[in-house]
Amino acid sequence: MQSRLLPIMKRKHKHRGMYLSRLEQIQSPEDLRGLSDDELAVIAAEIRLRLIQVTAQNGGHLASSLGATDIIVAMHAVYNAPVDKLVFDTGHQAYAHKLLTGRQAGFSTLRQHEGLSGFIRKDESDYDVYDTGHASDALSIAMGLVLSRDLSDRHERVVALVGDAAMSGGMAFEALNQIGHEARDLTIILNDNEMSIAHNVGAFSLYLAKMRSSRPYIRTRDTIEGSLSRLGNPGRYLVDVGERMRDSMKLFLVGGSFFEDLGFTYLGPVDGHSIEHLRQVMLSSQQLAGPVLIHAYTTKGKGYLPAEADPELFHGASRFTVSTGVFLPKNEGKSYTEYFSDALVAEGGADPSIVAITAAMPKGTGLDAFKQSFPERFFDAGIAEEHAVTSAAGMALGGNLPVVAIYSSFLQRAYDQLMTNVCLMGQHVVFCLDRAGLVGEDGTTHHGVFDLAYLRTMPNMKVIAPASAQQLVDALHTALALDGPVALRFPRGEAYHLDGEKTTPLAPRMLDVGRAELLRSGSDVAFLALGSMVKQGLEAASLLEAEGISTAVYNMIWAKPIDTGLLASLTGYRLVVTLEEGTLMGGFGSAVLEAFADQAADLADSPRMPRVVRIGIPDDFVAHGTPQELMEDLQLDASSIAQKVRALYGEDQA
Amino acid sequence: MQSRLLPIMKRKHKHRGMYLSRLEQIQSPEDLRGLSDDELAVIAAEIRLRLIQVTAQNGGHLASSLGATDIIVAMHAVYNAPVDKLVFDTGHQAYAHKLLTGRQAGFSTLRQHEGLSGFIRKDESDYDVYDTGHASDALSIAMGLVLSRDLSDRHERVVALVGDAAMSGGMAFEALNQIGHEARDLTIILNDNEMSIAHNVGAFSLYLAKMRSSRPYIRTRDTIEGSLSRLGNPGRYLVDVGERMRDSMKLFLVGGSFFEDLGFTYLGPVDGHSIEHLRQVMLSSQQLAGPVLIHAYTTKGKGYLPAEADPELFHGASRFTVSTGVFLPKNEGKSYTEYFSDALVAEGGADPSIVAITAAMPKGTGLDAFKQSFPERFFDAGIAEEHAVTSAAGMALGGNLPVVAIYSSFLQRAYDQLMTNVCLMGQHVVFCLDRAGLVGEDGTTHHGVFDLAYLRTMPNMKVIAPASAQQLVDALHTALALDGPVALRFPRGEAYHLDGEKTTPLAPRMLDVGRAELLRSGSDVAFLALGSMVKQGLEAASLLEAEGISTAVYNMIWAKPIDTGLLASLTGYRLVVTLEEGTLMGGFGSAVLEAFADQAADLADSPRMPRVVRIGIPDDFVAHGTPQELMEDLQLDASSIAQKVRALYGEDQA
Repeated sequence: MQSRLLPIMKRKHKHRGMYLSRLEQIQSPEDLRGLSDDELAVIAAEIRLRLIQVTAQNGGHLASSLGATDIIVAMHAVYNAPVDKLVFDTGHQAYAHKLLTGRQAGFSTLRQHEGLSGFIRKDESDYDVYDTGHASDALSIAMGLVLSRDLSDRHERVVALVGDAAMSGGMAFEALNQIGHEARDLTIILNDNEMSIAHNVGAFSLYLAKMRSSRPYIRTRDTIEGSLSRLGNPGRYLVDVGERMRDSMKLFLVGGSFFEDLGFTYLGPVDGHSIEHLRQVMLSSQQLAGPVLIHAYTTKGKGYLPAEADPELFHGASRFTVSTGVFLPKNEGKSYTEYFSDALVAEGGADPSIVAITAAMPKGTGLDAFKQSFPERFFDAGIAEEHAVTSAAGMALGGNLPVVAIYSSFLQRAYDQLMTNVCLMGQHVVFCLDRAGLVGEDGTTHHGVFDLAYLRTMPNMKVIAPASAQQLVDALHTALALDGPVALRFPRGEAYHLDGEKTTPLAPRMLDVGRAELLRSGSDVAFLALGSMVKQGLEAASLLEAEGISTAVYNMIWAKPIDTGLLASLTGYRLVVTLEEGTLMGGFGSAVLEAFADQAADLADSPRMPRVVRIGIPDDFVAHGTPQELMEDLQLDASSIAQKVRALYGEDQA
Repeated sequence: MQSRLLPIMKRKHKHRGMYLSRLEQIQSPEDLRGLSDDELAVIAAEIRLRLIQVTAQNGGHLASSLGATDIIVAMHAVYNAPVDKLVFDTGHQAYAHKLLTGRQAGFSTLRQHEGLSGFIRKDESDYDVYDTGHASDALSIAMGLVLSRDLSDRHERVVALVGDAAMSGGMAFEALNQIGHEARDLTIILNDNEMSIAHNVGAFSLYLAKMRSSRPYIRTRDTIEGSLSRLGNPGRYLVDVGERMRDSMKLFLVGGSFFEDLGFTYLGPVDGHSIEHLRQVMLSSQQLAGPVLIHAYTTKGKGYLPAEADPELFHGASRFTVSTGVFLPKNEGKSYTEYFSDALVAEGGADPSIVAITAAMPKGTGLDAFKQSFPERFFDAGIAEEHAVTSAAGMALGGNLPVVAIYSSFLQRAYDQLMTNVCLMGQHVVFCLDRAGLVGEDGTTHHGVFDLAYLRTMPNMKVIAPASAQQLVDALHTALALDGPVALRFPRGEAYHLDGEKTTPLAPRMLDVGRAELLRSGSDVAFLALGSMVKQGLEAASLLEAEGISTAVYNMIWAKPIDTGLLASLTGYRLVVTLEEGTLMGGFGSAVLEAFADQAADLADSPRMPRVVRIGIPDDFVAHGTPQELMEDLQLDASSIAQKVRALYGEDQA
């Protein structure tokens, strides 16, 4: 099935006695700068082959990176990085940039533990301008670089590559607003593939589509301006009139003036897979003063037919067979996402007031099933977490029961909206935070490790961290039946089942608010385990039991309100250990410390106050790797926990 | 000086034997609906008089509310609230709405403790749709209401009044994007006064200015569409052609098509002080399907000459004399803001790499002095906290040392940008959070009580809470000299001076990172006081001393890293009390508990572990009132603290 690959030209060249591909001869972007368009196209084709091979092994953001390859090759051929600053929004599309900037040798370690990051990382290369991962920030970073440059005597170019989907994030507009106003030299390349992760939504996206279908504006404008300016200075009046004529004519040609209204020179649309046209328009843009927007249209997944056919599937691809484009079996059971997805459809069937809201991730969050069952009650806000949360508050005010499904680390973007638009009014909105805890290969910006700490500081908020598939189903049911804001946080990947639970969940049951459950009895040590750490706690307890340390395991379920009633019964333990897959700074363990401190007077008569030890994620950013590797690094796996408790227990007895 | 007021027509009408003004006869908006434009204008004038009188007494958002009065009168005359939903962005401009919806009697309690809120509050009136306070959220709330309505069999109108400044907040664009795409019935009234708090910035604002200076578009469009649609169905082709012609002609008339590109019907510009024109355009808009944007231009401060002359000064006005427009003396010393302002100018003089960034608040943050001294190094991002923070990260990458001055509660809006764009890369950006703690009359949405909890969860972040003017100066100096992100948080109002400190600060000194200072010795109880609570702690210690409870007071200075070395020396105390003007959920007190827990093994040999009690803001939203009233309500004042400690101390001895 090699035919599914576009024909790749593999001209080999000899170097130090070895035959090197054209790509292998590129040690740094400088090596691109003398090459012809055709030679660059060959390199682009070789890059694509490499991307396909490596992501087939390691998984990764294949579709976006294939789509942006030609643009990135052209950028490095035209601009003088690292002096010129090339900034990549989100950075998931920039694999080609890694291959062109001295990272070919390490590229097979992409997204692997201690290997190359799947995103742009400042400490990985001088060509990487800033750490990326969350969408819509590149224009603000670029603006900062431009303002700094203009305060110095430097004259480097600043060029931002941003996807059309990232433009739906409000911060991108905030940046456009200042960039247009300041009128400084800055180039934005809009990579328009009509997709976010799913198909794009929003009026802006429709507007871009209108422009795409138009004849290229660039030449027409040149013609008009050229002829007017040839009249010289005396023709200034005519140029002014011409400005208005131009605006007027443009409407017929490109159907709008969004960017020009904001002070940009708009160049495009240009074929984002034509190295020739891309170079031309980039070179032209260098002649213009002030902010320029180059509108390039591309095909997501370009060059690999399976990815072109289903770019959403190949957005964040897991491992697959290159020749067929078929994903390798995952060797794991049903994920939390799938259980959530099923449960929400069932709840939606029972309660017509339920609506579901996502921020550009219908599939990743599992809302696609709800969408299919209740299309009129499903809403995709685009990559716009703030609006997603506040429009949910509006729907709650309007009488609906909104379920907002956003990954843990992306919900951070709506902190103030959670606080001000939901919690302040005590609105009944249910937040479902998938990918809570360590997400694995996507790494630093995608780990959901701050949610427990930030959600529990919000008045009126309740936070549930189910420990199993059944408990997720129960937690959703409970959250929908309660009032006020409730957040569920659950991890990426295969769902866990507690002893006696079936893989096909029973009908949902109501959880008691703020009530923990004892899963395993013990007399020396008590684990207060939350969510995903219940599994680790149970395993660690078994290890300790074998060594004669009798360990109880509580499944805490609620991060807020926590089971304060439980504390009095813990005073007999020598050691109480909190277990959470979240930051130790102000997290669940701190909530337990707070509760013990608040009850100190009541507990004063107790035989002995136990020592409380918190186990969780330290106050640092966590890199990428498999979840298991990261858990071991952070000593959050069962064996590390047992080891730590053993040491503490000995210490305490000494 | 009565002449400074616009002439107010005071026709009195007799009612139950009393003469009532026209305004007093308005019990609910229904009473407006039969009135003529002239009668409505009289009511608007009477409203203005009332606004001026009450804000002169109580302080408040006078300039915005004066500017929006005619629009609000027209809205209530045209729409059928509370069935129709009128949503007010930020809500600081909606005083007229309060007076028209049954709150005239209570209006003199505006912004007072247990009186009317200065913002829109759902629990204050059925006419108040949602709780407001932070800008740029009304369009998202409105969209939620519209989506809910369209899922029901209801047909109410949803109308959002939003200022041009709020449009610079990204969430507003996120909402426009979805509203335009969904094409549902929704009306946005853009109140364009060319101002945020200060003069507006941004390309969007320039665009609006272009439109304002154009001839009203509304009639022209009517004419074109009218004549084309009169051709009936066979004229459909012509209508299509007409659509493009219309677009083209419009450009000559209004200079742009920003809103129409996003799927809105644009109506305007209309004089936002002409009740007649406003009613006309609102009524016209009801004939149109899909989203409509009405562009009304107004004068901030309209009707009160001192406010028209200096709308920034009268944005959030303190008490003043009506006849002169002169503010009453504040009876307090130099504020923290002023000390910060002076200190930053001094630092900026010494280090040319320092740049200062604000989000639409040059004056409130004290950056205006820096702006005056170093105009090329000052940047106003508009009401766009996300972009402000991320562009600061960009400037740090570019070699500058950015100082970002944003009020504590507004910095919440950039949580993810702080985390992802600043802390992740360890960028050296200094955040200056004025209005940290209880801000007083602005109330719930403006209190800065979550910053300690959310900032300290961010890896690499340092957090300083100076306790005095001198210490603020020292803290700024220290933050600039360190590396990585540093946040300073300090309260609104008069600066405190520690014993021996002068009101004119000495040259700045470096603070030792994470080092507390002992301000007062004592042997029974130790206060670990942070920032503004140092003052309360010292006073409470004096009260306790008088009763024989010897109390030490530590000025902790650093919320992160906290002085963990100090803890070992605290084991002799019976009681350790943490004091903070911030939430108890995961705040500074929790950091102390964490540190004690982490050191438990080392402290095990100590004579006795002290009981740790946390005093701070409980897990609830705090209403408005004077800071002193609120401190007493929350038992954070010195006398309440002393009382609590007395009780605990007795308990502990019993």
